[in-house]
Amino acid sequence: MGTKKIEVEEQEFLACCGSTRFAQEMVEVSPFSSLDDAIVAARHVWFNKVDVNGWLEAFSAHPQIGQTPFSSSSSSSSSSAHSTSAQWSKGEQSTALSTATTSSLQQLSEWNARYYQKFGFVFIICASGRTTEEILAELKKRFPNRPIVEFEVAAQEQMKITELRLAKLFSSKAKEFSTG
Amino acid sequence: MGTKKIEVEEQEFLACCGSTRFAQEMVEVSPFSSLDDAIVAARHVWFNKVDVNGWLEAFSAHPQIGQTPFSSSSSSSSSSAHSTSAQWSKGEQSTALSTATTSSLQQLSEWNARYYQKFGFVFIICASGRTTEEILAELKKRFPNRPIVEFEVAAQEQMKITELRLAKLFSSKAKEFSTG
Repeated sequence: MGTKKIEVEEQEFLACCGSTRFAQEMVEVSPFSSLDDAIVAARHVWFNKVDVNGWLEAFSAHPQIGQTPFSSSSSSSSSSAHSTSAQWSKGEQSTALSTATTSSLQQLSEWNARYYQKFGFVFIICASGRTTEEILAELKKRFPNRPIVEFEVAAQEQMKITELRLAKLFSSKAKEFSTG
Repeated sequence: MGTKKIEVEEQEFLACCGSTRFAQEMVEVSPFSSLDDAIVAARHVWFNKVDVNGWLEAFSAHPQIGQTPFSSSSSSSSSSAHSTSAQWSKGEQSTALSTATTSSLQQLSEWNARYYQKFGFVFIICASGRTTEEILAELKKRFPNRPIVEFEVAAQEQMKITELRLAKLFSSKAKEFSTG
């Protein structure tokens, strides 16, 4: 089992990070011996191979923070990558959703709109374990950034999200091995 | 005459830099007392107000370097901003075009294609006074850059082009004043 390589499909990588180029390049350098190997490869692909259009494509695959993925996915066609991504997104926002009040959600919604108006993409944050208040504070802190600076900050947050999702993916693959 | 403000229209700003947001924001802070004032404002707008989509929009308004703007404009609808931009682009590439050989143009075309494939936008360079060989050397030097790094380099080159074009625009406005 130690030398067994882990096979991952393009759609599965796409659920981790919504850039088509990312998913294709990851398949290209697959399979991986471990999660660590996959994360090293993913970082290289994301920061060196995926172009700025690919970054924007990945950002646009996220629901607006504070919105449940269900409502944002209603207009787009359903795919396995999309539904997995939506499910993970819900899990990542569970702390935020459980700590949200009507007032804080309202504020978050208003600041999200201002953010989108300024930067042209949704606010990307690795939300795992963060409360709505913390997310809102982070949004306000990042808002004065120059667009190019914020673009790179968002890409770093996207990478954190991708790493957590790769971990979930590999963990579920390991279960398949042991039970299958 | 010293206190006379210089009126510039949105279409004229758009010919200097093909981002709609850039042109709109420049009109917003117009009129200007001098070219220097306009350049200071343009730098602020370009680096702080125009988002990454606006940068990509401005880049896409340029012909591929080494191609005459005439051939690249054939498919898009003609506008005053577009035709002024195309004319200026031709002038900016005059040194390159006069020093070009069939072989160097062929090489430039191949490297442009590789560049576009990697970065997802055309190679942007302030070409004024540069030979084809110099432009090709610069393209090869910038090619290994990470996409986000190259994106910012391209934006700085775009700003240099915009400054030269603002100078031409203000110079022609000054002539209108003195002859009109």
